[in-house]
Amino acid sequence: MDRDLESLKGFRDFYPDEMAARREVFDTVEETARSYGFREIATPSLEPLELYEIKSGEEIVDETYSFEDKGGRQVTMAPELTPSVVRIFVAKQQEFSKPLKWYSVPKLWRYEQPQSGRLREFYQPNFDIFGGETPEADAEIVSLADDMLRSLGLDDDFVLRMSHRKILQGIVEGFDLPSEDAQHVYRTVDKTEKLEADELRARLREVLDDEQTSTVVSLTQIRGFDSLEEVLDISERQKTREGIENLRAIHDRLADYGVDVEFDPRIVRGLDYYTGAVFECFDTEGDLRSIFGGGRYDDLVETFGGQPTPAVGFAPGDATLELLMKRAGVWPDERIHTDYYVAVIGDVRQTAVEVAQSLRAEDNVVEIDLSNRGFSGQLEYADSINAEKTVIVGERDLSEGVVTVKEMETGDQKQVPLEEFA
Amino acid sequence: MDRDLESLKGFRDFYPDEMAARREVFDTVEETARSYGFREIATPSLEPLELYEIKSGEEIVDETYSFEDKGGRQVTMAPELTPSVVRIFVAKQQEFSKPLKWYSVPKLWRYEQPQSGRLREFYQPNFDIFGGETPEADAEIVSLADDMLRSLGLDDDFVLRMSHRKILQGIVEGFDLPSEDAQHVYRTVDKTEKLEADELRARLREVLDDEQTSTVVSLTQIRGFDSLEEVLDISERQKTREGIENLRAIHDRLADYGVDVEFDPRIVRGLDYYTGAVFECFDTEGDLRSIFGGGRYDDLVETFGGQPTPAVGFAPGDATLELLMKRAGVWPDERIHTDYYVAVIGDVRQTAVEVAQSLRAEDNVVEIDLSNRGFSGQLEYADSINAEKTVIVGERDLSEGVVTVKEMETGDQKQVPLEEFA
Repeated sequence: MDRDLESLKGFRDFYPDEMAARREVFDTVEETARSYGFREIATPSLEPLELYEIKSGEEIVDETYSFEDKGGRQVTMAPELTPSVVRIFVAKQQEFSKPLKWYSVPKLWRYEQPQSGRLREFYQPNFDIFGGETPEADAEIVSLADDMLRSLGLDDDFVLRMSHRKILQGIVEGFDLPSEDAQHVYRTVDKTEKLEADELRARLREVLDDEQTSTVVSLTQIRGFDSLEEVLDISERQKTREGIENLRAIHDRLADYGVDVEFDPRIVRGLDYYTGAVFECFDTEGDLRSIFGGGRYDDLVETFGGQPTPAVGFAPGDATLELLMKRAGVWPDERIHTDYYVAVIGDVRQTAVEVAQSLRAEDNVVEIDLSNRGFSGQLEYADSINAEKTVIVGERDLSEGVVTVKEMETGDQKQVPLEEFA
Repeated sequence: MDRDLESLKGFRDFYPDEMAARREVFDTVEETARSYGFREIATPSLEPLELYEIKSGEEIVDETYSFEDKGGRQVTMAPELTPSVVRIFVAKQQEFSKPLKWYSVPKLWRYEQPQSGRLREFYQPNFDIFGGETPEADAEIVSLADDMLRSLGLDDDFVLRMSHRKILQGIVEGFDLPSEDAQHVYRTVDKTEKLEADELRARLREVLDDEQTSTVVSLTQIRGFDSLEEVLDISERQKTREGIENLRAIHDRLADYGVDVEFDPRIVRGLDYYTGAVFECFDTEGDLRSIFGGGRYDDLVETFGGQPTPAVGFAPGDATLELLMKRAGVWPDERIHTDYYVAVIGDVRQTAVEVAQSLRAEDNVVEIDLSNRGFSGQLEYADSINAEKTVIVGERDLSEGVVTVKEMETGDQKQVPLEEFA
């Protein structure tokens, strides 16, 4: 075998110990979503390329695994879930009572330069509510995000920051800029945190006059819901006012859940399809990087040919979540777990199998000797799989109707009637 | 929106009701595997094309989603899991105590003509034991398959049939045929069930003489473990004898588990990589189609560059399993389930949210009004999500410190102290 047998760059192999930790995280994430009434869906991993062009334009091809299939169709390995979710929602939207709460934990693929927290293949749990236009729906989504992170053991390790697309939109629309320049402003504000004060001003100055620049800079300096109304000192645009009122209402509803968020007008969520409240989760340690984000996107269903339907959602990637949890020291132990190892000593296999099968029927994780090893070899194997207990089934014990149960950590042994296992 | 927004042919969209049933099936399958000590792994969905050529030759490209990625690498969307599993096993095989028991529930992709039970995208749970050369290991795998199907509610609906590659190999090697002709015999025997007696004989006759043909035909007519030794009346080849002895030992070990299998020399498992015992699960109703199969493949790890390692496994596809379960009437109900709907009547939202959150913290599936609907609208919605109970949080009740709990099926209502939910 002289061939290169590695996986592709940016793709990961998960062995049982790593996977056990990851499964624990996914289980917690999914259980939390299910407790909120989110329902699992699944969509194809390969979709027609057009599906992504609707929302993202043709340049999406460069960053995705897109190719021509054998039937001559342009297809793409799903780089994000939302277009697929909206597609299946639109296909049956008349049949459902709203709101709909859907989740999915797909693998997704992007042809990007791999780096820490960014891979070519990743898992991205995805949560959406369709048909809830109220602040209550926004609050429910943000509370789910908060609850999920706390269920994962995170506490002071993250902070949720919110803003509203209409706040900055109202201000920028007042400047009456060409759409490209307006986009430049949104993009620059989105990057505020990575820019020095001079840089921020200089970049804004490229498309704004001095006064406009000062207005936007002042906005980016406001912090916290206590100061939310200060935005009105900067601009009295109707749209900005609507954004503030909606954000205030969501903040009040979040208080019902006991969830704390910060107002931060720098949260824009790039050039995305968001139309209302937007939020991001930041790591409070180290570099305060954005872990994931989400928000309201009320126009997307219509863009995909559906009846106008308000929607709100978020999607945390597994790689950044793992970085956050590891930094916070709450990533689960990467080790496999075994409840019972059944050791077979002598010609007692049938009884040993019966013991194993009855423990398995009670949902224990049970292994039994498959290699006809000697006693010490079997105990060594039991150690290697982190067995909690070993049930030793031996000829002499059996003649007295008992088996020996050994606690692997302490080494304590006791004899137990065979019937207890049958 | 004038674009075609359908999924690709042979790919499925799963809505919550369908997915709920499928999740229940996967959960049962995975729980059974975990109880046997199988550990979850995960491997990339996209692999270098070479990985599949090692085992299957270059023609694999025609039946797969293979393409050149943007870095100029030939890549393939995984059409089967085994090459990836063997790859990651080989990469770390020295680190592990054997046997290793691994499972995974990947999506896989094949560019085939879609038909009933055969799709272009499918789930295929995959179970392997590495490093167990004993009949005990074969028996453990077959028992897992049997247990899994019974846990899914199947009983007389399926039958497991076994044979051993060495039985037919011994006989065919005695004919001293060119390898291509030998393959023709294996392939023909594999299809016996679909052939008329005349056809079978005619096809064999293409590469065998009359006596050889009669030998093979006689073999295909033997049935059941009671008749296993009759094979020796047909051939006394050493390899055939080894196959019989090994199969007998596996059968004896399976008796320890109480698992019943039939000996059927027509089970060959195509041209695959199997080297020892092979088995298939058949539907006993209708067309007796093969639902899935598995067996021993002791040479594959070496083919992939690893130290020689015995291995045994199987992999049932989700689509054929679904057909079998539906025919047997044990496919789970396709409906979503909700434990509690919390109705909000009047200005009591904070208390209602507290009730919902405390029920969610106990892992109930709970929805709460997000649309500010009236009472009857809320009850209608609760019905649409199959809520078991509705907790009605209303102003008047609250002034007396109670909420009303309505059993949705019977309509029974009772008042319950608020504290029970806080």
